[in-house]
Amino acid sequence: MKIAACQMVSGPDLAANLATARRLLEDAARQGAALAALPEYFCLMGMHDSDKLALAEDEGQGPIQAMLATAARELGLWLIGGTLPIKAATSERVRNSTLVFSPSGGRVARYDKIHLFAFDDGRESYDEGRVLEAGGTPTAFDANGLQVGLSVCYDLRFPELYRGYAGSALLAVPAAFTYTTGQAHWELLLRARAVENQCYVVAPAQGGRHANGRRTWGHSMVVDPWGQVLAVLPEGEGVVVADLDPARLAQVRQQLPALGHRRLG
Amino acid sequence: MKIAACQMVSGPDLAANLATARRLLEDAARQGAALAALPEYFCLMGMHDSDKLALAEDEGQGPIQAMLATAARELGLWLIGGTLPIKAATSERVRNSTLVFSPSGGRVARYDKIHLFAFDDGRESYDEGRVLEAGGTPTAFDANGLQVGLSVCYDLRFPELYRGYAGSALLAVPAAFTYTTGQAHWELLLRARAVENQCYVVAPAQGGRHANGRRTWGHSMVVDPWGQVLAVLPEGEGVVVADLDPARLAQVRQQLPALGHRRLG
Repeated sequence: MKIAACQMVSGPDLAANLATARRLLEDAARQGAALAALPEYFCLMGMHDSDKLALAEDEGQGPIQAMLATAARELGLWLIGGTLPIKAATSERVRNSTLVFSPSGGRVARYDKIHLFAFDDGRESYDEGRVLEAGGTPTAFDANGLQVGLSVCYDLRFPELYRGYAGSALLAVPAAFTYTTGQAHWELLLRARAVENQCYVVAPAQGGRHANGRRTWGHSMVVDPWGQVLAVLPEGEGVVVADLDPARLAQVRQQLPALGHRRLG
Repeated sequence: MKIAACQMVSGPDLAANLATARRLLEDAARQGAALAALPEYFCLMGMHDSDKLALAEDEGQGPIQAMLATAARELGLWLIGGTLPIKAATSERVRNSTLVFSPSGGRVARYDKIHLFAFDDGRESYDEGRVLEAGGTPTAFDANGLQVGLSVCYDLRFPELYRGYAGSALLAVPAAFTYTTGQAHWELLLRARAVENQCYVVAPAQGGRHANGRRTWGHSMVVDPWGQVLAVLPEGEGVVVADLDPARLAQVRQQLPALGHRRLG
C-alpha cells in the first residue's frame, strides 16, 4: 500500500490553502497512494493564533470538512486530514483536530491533539492553550486491516502516546514544527518512534516561510519500521510517497520481537 | 560535574578484564571525572552465554564487586559498574546487574536488566533467558543531588522504562550492542531518550571484535539534554568524558518545558 505525506506552506487564505491541499492530494493519488496525510493547520497558518477561531467548524459541517470528504471519495483515498480547528463543546476555544475519511468519503476517526505547548521564561511566554482546548483520547483507525495511530506535532515528544498504539502498522504525525526545534529533533524523534514501535511513520509537515514571518522545518517524510527514511521533502510544497510493505513489517518484528518483550506499563 | 563512559573490548579472561576496567577508571579520574560508567559485561565476554554462570557472584561478595568498591573509593568516583552476573536467589540462572558505588566505596544501588532479548524465526533461535533471570524493578540513585536512572542495553528499546526516570539529570545505558543493531539504532535511541526526557545520557559500550568472534558496535558516548552527542569513541578501548552542566539542564527544561506537559501514563 502506497502512502503519501503532503507538505504545505499554508498562509492566511483558507480558499487558497484548500485548493493547494486538493492539488497535492490529486498528485498523491496520481502517484498511486492509497492513503494520504495533510499537515497540521493545512487550512490556515494565520497571522495570529486567534485566527483559528474565525474558521473553526462545527463537527460534521463546513467547507474544510466538505473538501476533505469530497477529496477522499473522488480520489479514492484514506485521507488523514492534517488538522483543522473544530469548535469545542464547552469553551470558546477550539480543538486542533485530525479528521480521517475513508475512500467512500465517510468520516472514520477524529483525533484531537493531546499535548499543547506552553512556555514562560519570565520575559517571554507562549501558551497554545489560550486558543486550543486539549484532547484527551488516543485514537487509532483501521485502513484495510492496517491499524493507524494518530497524533499531532508536539505529541511527538511523548513516547507514551505511541506505546498505546503499539502493534499499529503506521503512525501518523501531521506537524508544523518550528525551524529550530525541527532541525534539532524532528527526524530523530520520528525515527525513534518507528524503531521502538516497529512500524511505519508518515509525517506530513508545514515547510517554508509563512505570511506571519514564521519559518517551519518541513522535511515531510515516511520512515520504515527499521528507522530508515524512505522518502523526504526538505522544504516547499509537494508530496512524498513510499510503500508500506506488510512483509517488511512482519520481517522486522520477527527478527527483533521487541513488541512482545514489554515488561513495564 | 564531569562524567565518563569507559569503552571495552572484553574477553574471556576475568583478571585481564578487571585490570583493563581499573586502568580505564584511572584514566577517567585523571581526566577529572566525578562519575564513571563501565559497559555491560565489562568483566566477561566469554565464548558461550553460559560462561557467565561460572563467575557469577553472590551479592556483596567476590572479586568483581571488590574491584568496583576499591576503584570507587581509591579514585573518588561515583562508579556505575556496568554489568556483572549476580546469582539469582531462586534459580540456577544469574541476574545481569549494574552495581553502583559511591566515592566512599559503599554500594548505593543495584539494577538488574529488565528486558531480555529473545528471538526464534523457526530456523534460528536465541534466548537470553536461558542464562539470565530478568529483573523487574526500575532503579535510580542520587549522586550529589543529581538523580541517575539505570538501564542496560536492550532496555534502550523500551521508552516506558525511562519515562519512570523522568526528572533525572542523567540516564545510564551500559551496553554491548551487536554491530548490526548498533549501527542502525544505538545513537538514534540514545539521543531520543535524552531529548524526550530532557536529560544527559552516559552510554558505555563494548566496542570491537571479541574472542568469541562476535563484533560489538562500540560508540560509547555522552549525550546532552538537547540530543547533541558531546563525546563519542567509535571503537576500541578508551574513555570519553563530557561535562554534565546543571545550568544547561535547567535551560533546556525552561525553554521547552515538555516534562511538565505529560498527560498520559
